[in-house]
Amino acid sequence: MTKPLAVGIAGLGTVGAGVLALLRENAATIAARAGRPIAVTAVSSRDRTRDRGVSVAGLRWYEDAAALADDASVDVVVETIGGIDGPAAATVRAALRAGKPVVTANKALLAVHGAELAALADRSGVTLAYEAAVAGGIPAIKAIREGLAANDLTRVLGILNGTCNYILTQMRERGREFTEALHEAQKLGYAEADPSFDVDGIDAAHKLAILAALAFGRPVDFGAVHVEGIRGISALDIALAAELGYRIKLLGIARRTEHGVDTRVHPCMVPLAHPIAHVDGVFNAVVAEGDFVGRVVLQGRGAGAGPTASAVVADLIDIARGRRAPVWGVAAGDLSPLPAMPMSKRVGAYYLRLMVVDRPGVIADVTGALRDHAISLESILQRGRAPGEAVPVVVTTHDCEEAEMRAALARIEALDAVVETPALIRIENLQ
Amino acid sequence: MTKPLAVGIAGLGTVGAGVLALLRENAATIAARAGRPIAVTAVSSRDRTRDRGVSVAGLRWYEDAAALADDASVDVVVETIGGIDGPAAATVRAALRAGKPVVTANKALLAVHGAELAALADRSGVTLAYEAAVAGGIPAIKAIREGLAANDLTRVLGILNGTCNYILTQMRERGREFTEALHEAQKLGYAEADPSFDVDGIDAAHKLAILAALAFGRPVDFGAVHVEGIRGISALDIALAAELGYRIKLLGIARRTEHGVDTRVHPCMVPLAHPIAHVDGVFNAVVAEGDFVGRVVLQGRGAGAGPTASAVVADLIDIARGRRAPVWGVAAGDLSPLPAMPMSKRVGAYYLRLMVVDRPGVIADVTGALRDHAISLESILQRGRAPGEAVPVVVTTHDCEEAEMRAALARIEALDAVVETPALIRIENLQ
Repeated sequence: MTKPLAVGIAGLGTVGAGVLALLRENAATIAARAGRPIAVTAVSSRDRTRDRGVSVAGLRWYEDAAALADDASVDVVVETIGGIDGPAAATVRAALRAGKPVVTANKALLAVHGAELAALADRSGVTLAYEAAVAGGIPAIKAIREGLAANDLTRVLGILNGTCNYILTQMRERGREFTEALHEAQKLGYAEADPSFDVDGIDAAHKLAILAALAFGRPVDFGAVHVEGIRGISALDIALAAELGYRIKLLGIARRTEHGVDTRVHPCMVPLAHPIAHVDGVFNAVVAEGDFVGRVVLQGRGAGAGPTASAVVADLIDIARGRRAPVWGVAAGDLSPLPAMPMSKRVGAYYLRLMVVDRPGVIADVTGALRDHAISLESILQRGRAPGEAVPVVVTTHDCEEAEMRAALARIEALDAVVETPALIRIENLQ
Repeated sequence: MTKPLAVGIAGLGTVGAGVLALLRENAATIAARAGRPIAVTAVSSRDRTRDRGVSVAGLRWYEDAAALADDASVDVVVETIGGIDGPAAATVRAALRAGKPVVTANKALLAVHGAELAALADRSGVTLAYEAAVAGGIPAIKAIREGLAANDLTRVLGILNGTCNYILTQMRERGREFTEALHEAQKLGYAEADPSFDVDGIDAAHKLAILAALAFGRPVDFGAVHVEGIRGISALDIALAAELGYRIKLLGIARRTEHGVDTRVHPCMVPLAHPIAHVDGVFNAVVAEGDFVGRVVLQGRGAGAGPTASAVVADLIDIARGRRAPVWGVAAGDLSPLPAMPMSKRVGAYYLRLMVVDRPGVIADVTGALRDHAISLESILQRGRAPGEAVPVVVTTHDCEEAEMRAALARIEALDAVVETPALIRIENLQ
């Protein structure tokens, strides 16, 4: 058998230790599929004493990850440090400059510096692989880059953050409010002490920016992603969604439209008939729609040491076999400069839930504001009657433009009878 | 740009014409992703005059597909003739012997002659690719061979035949009996005039044999697959399944067990909580379970010109890019000779529905037979009371061995009071 592929792992957190464990545990299977053994020879981490549940004896140890990238006996660098700048970026740059393939699980790094790093990889003629950066163990990057490569993709969307999906699932199944469900997720280790990166949609937006670049052959553009998180979702809206035949999911959606590429992360109402409506708990899903293949749905675990290591090692096996692809699926020169579509141009249906003081004329004011912006109603529902008190009023609309909806909403919000910030949730009538 | 990859398409039926159309319609996207243009230069078909909805002007035309394989200006042969022997096999052999990569959508050919053809491909050092042979447009082969390659897979299963899934879905949604649903599927073109290949499970068994070989790195063994179709499923059993919290699906299941590799195709009761229970109509799904990744579910269209062409062209793009993998994921010498598990060793739960004459002692006789074979009951339900007439009795069991269940069933079937062939459906309590 050929000489082993020597791997250096930069960063021995959960993911790095998982990669080390997987390469050892499934060594025979991996060697057979890779055509040669894959062995970790060096690692970097600042903390040498921590128990990681896996032995680091016999491995060359670096405190400085960038120095590991320069180790002449390391063939490939796996970056599992995390973070947009700092040591992760320095390590990836050092490895690519040294002409070494890089495998990274770092979505933030790729979303923000992906164009620069791809250019660096191109110049050195080496692979920069990132299956683990999006949707954890689901081979979504490979599916879009290779498996569906014959298609012009029209839309890619997904449940890209397991923390949010877990919280929304708990809210629905147990009738919990957001704050309570978040605390439970934190207790179980599904959410960080500072959860903003997940619950504000930023993590999902990083992943969506990567998917959009790959799906549409366009330079990665994290700044163009419209991002909203799930803090504003209430148990009431989740229950009302169910009555209307929907589930509320935090989706990342990338579409090719006549106005450019539309990329956005926000809570959506998804029809119960769509498979993604039933992807619950910490599971992720990616949906790709192509002109020849139709709709393909991929589901699996989006995080955790095992699934993430599975994706990292799949990239290593590709490298060991000599299977290569350009970072964004096509050569840098073939990337198309499609413009970004502004969010104000989004056309679709809306769910609007108001708390209004139950008195004559309120519904007329609300529907008048919608009419003035040419928004037609699909349904309107006033729940309960309590003269003089606040009751929910739920409106669903036919397709209209986001700009019109926003303008109408500003007028509605300013009405005296509207006593809370209205809940506006986009309805995605996915087929 | 590099020289185009010259493709010869052997067989211009629905799939072959679809490949031709796709390569033309998405030529620019495909060239960018493949790093070079991919162009059809020759085709073979006996019927030169048929309207295929796509122009064949300017293509070299062969009546004999094997001669096309020998055309020196053809770089890759796409085989879409179909059939186990005859021109399909001759063409694939001729192309591989001539040192040309082959892309085929022919599951029957691979399931039966896969070992021989893989050896031929190995000897010539060329690719034999078959993404389109299993689950149509779903990139299931690539996912298992590369995307999940780091895992020891414990189980692979799927809804592998869209015709059966369509019929079962119609039976459930409209309360139709099998024969009626089959006729409707035939009218819509979802079933052939002679439907036996699909409804008797043979097509699914071909695909399962391929998946099992790939997932477990084992020589393809179609003969070892236990095959049952859906002709025996009644609307009554589908309705009773729903009451018990299950859906009836024709599944192909491959598992690695202590008794060897278990491969079988038969109708199953699947818990409603499992994603595969909701894959309806002509859609296919493949579920792979790995030791690190957990459960991954892939869904999409399993047949039709567009999805199948999408898979064929994905293989061509891999070939154009120089991305290669051994036919069965590992080198021939690394295939492991795991034995096949006999069906009699299957351990699981069962659903048994009898039509019995409603008279004293019948239930005691039935449950006595089960007890004598150490089969314990999960539930028993007698629906309705009609002294002297036939009423359904439904039994669900705890896990037991197939051999015991078969022996008990033989005794039950022989009871005077049992007036129809009992319906025995395996319950797969998938997580």
